[in-house]
Amino acid sequence: MAPHDPLPGPRLGEPYLLTPGPLTTAYEVKQAMLRDWGSWDDDFRALTAEMRTRLVGLLGAGHEAYDCVPMQGSGSFAVEAMLGSFIPRDGKALVLANGAYGLRAAETLRYLGRDHVVLDKGDYLPPRGAEVAQILAGDPAITHVVAVHCETSSGILNPIEEISDAVAAAGRVLLIDSMSAFGAVPLEPARLQFDAMVSSANKCIEGVPGFGFVLAKKTALAAARGNSASLSLDVHAQWAHMEKTGQWRFTPPTHVVAAFVEALRAHAEEGGVAGRGARYVRNRDVLVQGMRDLGFETLLADRWLSPIIITFFCPADPAFDFPTFYDAMKARGFVLYPGKLTVVDSFRIGCIGQLDEHVMRRVVAAAGEVLAEMGVTSAAPPQAALDERSKLAS
Amino acid sequence: MAPHDPLPGPRLGEPYLLTPGPLTTAYEVKQAMLRDWGSWDDDFRALTAEMRTRLVGLLGAGHEAYDCVPMQGSGSFAVEAMLGSFIPRDGKALVLANGAYGLRAAETLRYLGRDHVVLDKGDYLPPRGAEVAQILAGDPAITHVVAVHCETSSGILNPIEEISDAVAAAGRVLLIDSMSAFGAVPLEPARLQFDAMVSSANKCIEGVPGFGFVLAKKTALAAARGNSASLSLDVHAQWAHMEKTGQWRFTPPTHVVAAFVEALRAHAEEGGVAGRGARYVRNRDVLVQGMRDLGFETLLADRWLSPIIITFFCPADPAFDFPTFYDAMKARGFVLYPGKLTVVDSFRIGCIGQLDEHVMRRVVAAAGEVLAEMGVTSAAPPQAALDERSKLAS
Repeated sequence: MAPHDPLPGPRLGEPYLLTPGPLTTAYEVKQAMLRDWGSWDDDFRALTAEMRTRLVGLLGAGHEAYDCVPMQGSGSFAVEAMLGSFIPRDGKALVLANGAYGLRAAETLRYLGRDHVVLDKGDYLPPRGAEVAQILAGDPAITHVVAVHCETSSGILNPIEEISDAVAAAGRVLLIDSMSAFGAVPLEPARLQFDAMVSSANKCIEGVPGFGFVLAKKTALAAARGNSASLSLDVHAQWAHMEKTGQWRFTPPTHVVAAFVEALRAHAEEGGVAGRGARYVRNRDVLVQGMRDLGFETLLADRWLSPIIITFFCPADPAFDFPTFYDAMKARGFVLYPGKLTVVDSFRIGCIGQLDEHVMRRVVAAAGEVLAEMGVTSAAPPQAALDERSKLAS
Repeated sequence: MAPHDPLPGPRLGEPYLLTPGPLTTAYEVKQAMLRDWGSWDDDFRALTAEMRTRLVGLLGAGHEAYDCVPMQGSGSFAVEAMLGSFIPRDGKALVLANGAYGLRAAETLRYLGRDHVVLDKGDYLPPRGAEVAQILAGDPAITHVVAVHCETSSGILNPIEEISDAVAAAGRVLLIDSMSAFGAVPLEPARLQFDAMVSSANKCIEGVPGFGFVLAKKTALAAARGNSASLSLDVHAQWAHMEKTGQWRFTPPTHVVAAFVEALRAHAEEGGVAGRGARYVRNRDVLVQGMRDLGFETLLADRWLSPIIITFFCPADPAFDFPTFYDAMKARGFVLYPGKLTVVDSFRIGCIGQLDEHVMRRVVAAAGEVLAEMGVTSAAPPQAALDERSKLAS
């Protein structure tokens, strides 16, 4: 570790996880898991209460109308819980998809038997407010719009405020999957209107994986009674039980919750959403500039780059091979993330977790070394990638 | 800690959790959570593979026909996943209930919209093979029987082999909730027939909470395709994805999985199901004898006492007050579990987790001290409790 590095970084010879969660967490967060908790004991109830209060507070201005309902399972469980609990059985959803997570929301609705239509923008093109307004104007049966805040398939930060304006103007309800963005990108009820959003423990709050959470309007939570066709994933029932008893309905992941509360305290110390977001923006800027200096190209124009995860095109040079690149980067202590584009080869590098600009400089230096080692003379992408990207400008 | 105590016990001044999970785990199990894992990286895939192999192996003779499908969330999520994935939408279930967990299975089926009938035996009376046979003979529409192995509401070990015989004789399919028993009480396909069973990480294997798992016949897993009305809780889809990629479909609770694999290794070192079960039986015997010596009475006759958790009646003495007893026991380092009987007051003491007979002797000694401190002269239960218990003999 460089002596000027202010973050302690991973121990035990572990690599940095440059992935969008699970990610590299602080040692102190993991240390909070070194004790056992009785899940219905007062000590643990206090932990749950602190967690809920802190999470609602992250909504900033306008948070008073919202409450927090944690949900066991992965983030996708929390998304399913939100969709199944807030969209009535006779409701109809418009899903805004531009990657795997939007498509997964649609797949979830198909499983749940909830009527829905999908605006599928492909691998990364952003759904725009005007087209959302047009669809809503043309289909009065649509009651809810489901949007993905940061689509980690490509790393795009979707224009959520523009979408919110269109949904609100049409008098419909917005549900947001802010899985990978919440805690580092503002999502403030004072600036946009939504009934509910979800995120999970192992993203920008930098906890370990094991549960997600829904932040929803109290009025929407009260109205959600009877909607869910799943006992486990019934957000209303979890909320009502928690309000009454201070406990989770079913066994909570106690150790993961303890770690998450530690992570929330560290998040507050770093300056909350603004402070956390500023570090991730620096991570992104250092990474993108460094990789561009090596000749790599990003999928997205600067305007759409999230501070969460960045997609780079694989170099066209025949000497480049992603599995070899991955292994050599891992041997240097950096675990990358494969790409998810359907048209051209790509890979992703996450900016979230216990990483800072010093780490990002080392990532860039390592990438340069590995390219040289592989005999890659140019990191420029194939023409097909640039053609693909030009769609964004049109 | 007594110098002759072979188990290290909790650290950091923590109390022992005499609860049926979450429970007191080994420090080494928790230490396994001190690193971060990339959820799709080879290292973590190897961990998942080891876990699945070890769990299937615990089925003992006849395990070759089975496979393991872990499921994120609490044990109740795994139960819902099993019910929703193995009972076809046009199937009909008979739920054998004698406590909260049987009733919860029925509630789950109500949510799922699956046709079902309930044999409700009340707080603790065991469902017997003969009555199961009679119900099945009278209702040919029933396709599946759902049984609870150890009903932790009362601590009764239900006669699962007798039930299995009745279900098999009628040509129906048995699904077992072995949440609190698996890993300490044998459940061997060579001795009883079942298509699937569930348990979770934080019970007799002594891991920390965060996921459950289904052990099911491979033929049943293959046939379960399309049954689930939940994307997250689709056991077939989780299995198919895991078989193909070695990965969980959605983000696994990586740290909890790492702890669980450590717990499985320790379970094997202790002698597997037989060794673990033998320690819990000693825990139970020392606890029950000691508490009876103090004048306490168990809800159940010896024949039905599980080695998992024991229900004791609250003393009739007006000087006894459970919240006071609970707090005083907690101050001495032992967290008890409130009772769940509807008719008479009771409390429960768990025998599972990192506890042994030495710890149980200290529990009994502490209970005696607390009774004296409270001025309770007799721990005998009220007559209503004994009347209630006499139902078991009839």
